[in-house]
Amino acid sequence: MTEITHQQAEIILRETLAKGREMGLKPLSVVVLDAGGHPKAFLREDGASPGRFEIARGKAYGAVMLGMGGRAQMARAEAQAYFMAAVNGAYGGKVIPVPGGLLVKDGDTVIGAVGVTGDTSDNDAEAGIAGIEAAGLTPEP
Amino acid sequence: MTEITHQQAEIILRETLAKGREMGLKPLSVVVLDAGGHPKAFLREDGASPGRFEIARGKAYGAVMLGMGGRAQMARAEAQAYFMAAVNGAYGGKVIPVPGGLLVKDGDTVIGAVGVTGDTSDNDAEAGIAGIEAAGLTPEP
Amino acid sequence: MTEITHQQAEIILRETLAKGREMGLKPLSVVVLDAGGHPKAFLREDGASPGRFEIARGKAYGAVMLGMGGRAQMARAEAQAYFMAAVNGAYGGKVIPVPGGLLVKDGDTVIGAVGVTGDTSDNDAEAGIAGIEAAGLTPEP
Amino acid sequence: MTEITHQQAEIILRETLAKGREMGLKPLSVVVLDAGGHPKAFLREDGASPGRFEIARGKAYGAVMLGMGGRAQMARAEAQAYFMAAVNGAYGGKVIPVPGGLLVKDGDTVIGAVGVTGDTSDNDAEAGIAGIEAAGLTPEP
Repeated sequence: MTEITHQQAEIILRETLAKGREMGLKPLSVVVLDAGGHPKAFLREDGASPGRFEIARGKAYGAVMLGMGGRAQMARAEAQAYFMAAVNGAYGGKVIPVPGGLLVKDGDTVIGAVGVTGDTSDNDAEAGIAGIEAAGLTPEP
Repeated sequence: MTEITHQQAEIILRETLAKGREMGLKPLSVVVLDAGGHPKAFLREDGASPGRFEIARGKAYGAVMLGMGGRAQMARAEAQAYFMAAVNGAYGGKVIPVPGGLLVKDGDTVIGAVGVTGDTSDNDAEAGIAGIEAAGLTPEP
Repeated sequence: MTEITHQQAEIILRETLAKGREMGLKPLSVVVLDAGGHPKAFLREDGASPGRFEIARGKAYGAVMLGMGGRAQMARAEAQAYFMAAVNGAYGGKVIPVPGGLLVKDGDTVIGAVGVTGDTSDNDAEAGIAGIEAAGLTPEP
Repeated sequence: MTEITHQQAEIILRETLAKGREMGLKPLSVVVLDAGGHPKAFLREDGASPGRFEIARGKAYGAVMLGMGGRAQMARAEAQAYFMAAVNGAYGGKVIPVPGGLLVKDGDTVIGAVGVTGDTSDNDAEAGIAGIEAAGLTPEP
């Protein structure tokens, strides 16, 4: 089984944060989850508010559990808010259905997900895409 | 180390309640949280309903955890209701995203938050701002 | 109905902390709950660890909900641990059954409870008793 | 302001894992929490079981919230099991009271905590101590 590695996760964290600094974003927090939705790596930059782990994980958790990126989740939430609310109840309230939640694929296989938070959702997603690509993997926003 | 002190918290409680009486508000409840969202001080005036601790804490908790005051949270909730609902799930249902939740800053550093409840949200916020300023600190509504 | 007042609560906080300082105790945290188990007032001294609200409330909450002080709860927990564990499940995990949880009586009527934490359970209780008596009320440890 | 930094957290992760490899330990997982108990950084080595984030955080969370290291918590749990069980209920079940939970001090000030899991509790603690010291900070086991 192809599983996201410790080394890939470290590259994703480092390069997502580097992209954020290059773009001039606010302090970011980045989580990498494995294909089961469990934390593999996390980093919160200085100056980010204390509750950022839950937001980053929420973006990535929904991606893994539903098999769809944050942008697709947001579209569903806007079309049918009660459905995503109900899904969230089923997942213990851990899902944040907005951009910045990114599936991580190795070829066609989902091997994990990344959640980025701190700036606008679109900027969060852009930084995360750069991080995933720097690790030689394929993001699905 | 810059951390909200016991003495600052007592001033904030006393002066927020004094402002509320001066404004002729209904009985108020006021909580002071530290920069990690943990209660430092609380007072509920006679005549306030019994569940006011949770409301006061909810206003202040979201402020600390997200790094934004209650007025900014309310704007986000009105623009994208499902997002704030999801955030609240991620924080165990402890967030009340309305005015009356105020970040407390010492210069540029967030050292805690204040939550006020009992009258209208706008009046709650006005009383809390007076309390924070009386302690020589800077409120962010 | 006799209900603990805002003013009595403030006296209890102030005098419990004064007693702690007189006894040379570690930094204390003190909560006052009303007769329904809901927070009326709380203060955490500088230097106390951040999680002290939950411990203080847990000591006082069990006292109010069960109508017995922390010392009596501890005796029950030591005689029949599974019973107090089950009670705690029924109360959402909010009970800490040790000394430092004190019923507050006005004559024969329970009007609230006090929870003190920070030093040994026995010292916590001694400080709380002094605070309740200073308010002209009767503690039940 | 004294707060654990992103850079200190990265040193702690890297050096704790390096110590684990030097000692020949099983795959480790390491979390760094800030002084409010909120995740700052986390890494889980390849081969560690998926649920290690919760164990690592549980060891560190109790340390921060109670202001005592895992070894002291374990002593209390062994002397008075129902007390630590009750404390855990009050903290939403997030406390794991065993060695490997380490307070992080800068001089006398608690600035965070580290949780290490994967090998025996004593080995976990030894690796974490090395990581904290490598960052120029003081561990309290």
